[in-house]
Amino acid sequence: MVREPGAAYEGTHTPGTAVLKIGIVNASSRFAETRGEAIKAWFEANVPDSSISFVFHPAVFQKHGHFGGDDATRANAFVEFANDPRLDAIWFARGGYGSCRIAEAILPRLTDEARKKRYLGYSDAGSLLAMLYKAGFPHVAHGPMASDAVRSDATAWRALDWLKKGASSSWEPTLHEDPRPAVAFNLSILDALVGTYLEPDLTGHVLMLEDVSEPLYRIDRMMFHLTAQPSIRRVAGIRLGRVSEIIENDPDFGLTPEEIVRYWCQRSGIPYLGGADIGHDRENKVVPFGHR
Amino acid sequence: MVREPGAAYEGTHTPGTAVLKIGIVNASSRFAETRGEAIKAWFEANVPDSSISFVFHPAVFQKHGHFGGDDATRANAFVEFANDPRLDAIWFARGGYGSCRIAEAILPRLTDEARKKRYLGYSDAGSLLAMLYKAGFPHVAHGPMASDAVRSDATAWRALDWLKKGASSSWEPTLHEDPRPAVAFNLSILDALVGTYLEPDLTGHVLMLEDVSEPLYRIDRMMFHLTAQPSIRRVAGIRLGRVSEIIENDPDFGLTPEEIVRYWCQRSGIPYLGGADIGHDRENKVVPFGHR
Repeated sequence: MVREPGAAYEGTHTPGTAVLKIGIVNASSRFAETRGEAIKAWFEANVPDSSISFVFHPAVFQKHGHFGGDDATRANAFVEFANDPRLDAIWFARGGYGSCRIAEAILPRLTDEARKKRYLGYSDAGSLLAMLYKAGFPHVAHGPMASDAVRSDATAWRALDWLKKGASSSWEPTLHEDPRPAVAFNLSILDALVGTYLEPDLTGHVLMLEDVSEPLYRIDRMMFHLTAQPSIRRVAGIRLGRVSEIIENDPDFGLTPEEIVRYWCQRSGIPYLGGADIGHDRENKVVPFGHR
Repeated sequence: MVREPGAAYEGTHTPGTAVLKIGIVNASSRFAETRGEAIKAWFEANVPDSSISFVFHPAVFQKHGHFGGDDATRANAFVEFANDPRLDAIWFARGGYGSCRIAEAILPRLTDEARKKRYLGYSDAGSLLAMLYKAGFPHVAHGPMASDAVRSDATAWRALDWLKKGASSSWEPTLHEDPRPAVAFNLSILDALVGTYLEPDLTGHVLMLEDVSEPLYRIDRMMFHLTAQPSIRRVAGIRLGRVSEIIENDPDFGLTPEEIVRYWCQRSGIPYLGGADIGHDRENKVVPFGHR
């Protein structure tokens, strides 16, 4: 449900009976009300028994230039929901750009209540996932966000099953066979985190990467930057998810995304482990951060 | 002159009498022969006394996918010209993308001859300028490249005057008043160098930045990344050159490039020092790296 600013927030469907109460926040670009309506409609059609309730933070549809509200508004909204004992999980509404701007203001204000919750998102939300994982939050995952999840029932249930109980059926499939800790990031986002106070220690982790709407020369440049970091050279290996909606270059770059990633892995001594079933699409699987 | 592959290379105009002998190399994207002809025509029209000679490395017009020849070819060409005692200076033909790929292969092969030369370029060439400066090369500068310089007589002479004798008349004007060491970079390039083996120690330096053809959300994200680096927080301050051909966002980002840079400087405690007369344009002034 879309609540009015200042109103007490409650789940859509008979709060109190729900076994999962989700708070939806926006840390990034403007979030369209039509997408909010789509989320509401999906829940009404697919969760008629009200076993899962959700609530939009009242600031979720705010606008400030490019952003979904100014930095203070987005940071306050995240802190308010993360610390709220009435909620079980935080679901990012959408990506775009903006979460790196608010991370520093959020972290010191999070309480033990916040530490208990599950957090799910990807793309730009990766900046906050990185922050939470670095801070030792145990239930942080890369996976479908509210706005894109409800475009497909399977995607939405994959997200909700993880938000509810960390269902392993939602996991990226290689996680069933590889017991090492894992993380997943949008390449552009991780590339903008390395060396900053948001970069978690990824030593020994399987690092999964995906990206969207980039020309291949940028993918190549980001892989140079990433794999030249001493910190990243300590990962267990890299898996490549989907690199979609590639912006064409003239002339053709001459390498595929997989060839680019293999090349930089080889140059930097990082094992290339193969593909990963993640990306900016409905097949995007859930990658819980760390050990499982 | 454009020499045939394998031919002995000589200056265009009566080599031996020239007071400045320039070698032109390409470390980045494909370099069009029409731009080579434009350079040749400019020299024929403007340096009829042959006091300045130039030579294209024979590999300069090669093509390999996106690049001006494969990595080995571009690296070998740079090393060959840098180490050649018959040349006084190395001028980058153009930018684009590709120099970060070849830096690691170049550096160990450079001799004391290479150390004596002047090096001038910007944009993608910044990766190699960073490498040379980090290695202690004394005559490295951010400034017009061969292809773009000859579009304007003033630009070309600004570049040549610096290549010939380091003329202070070519300098970015604030360098006349600020005695601190300086560097200049394309923001996207420096952002992709921090934390890598190519990043020079910029402690106490005035750091000038410029960029081209980026949307403002990327400028903002790069400034977050850059100013969050502990290494970059040790600069004396940041000056902002021109951010041109901005790719429009919908909605409008809401901040100008200067507002973005001021914001991140303030957040990170880096002094914002004002503007810099550099950019992807004919007014681009020369910024010699380090002390002057």
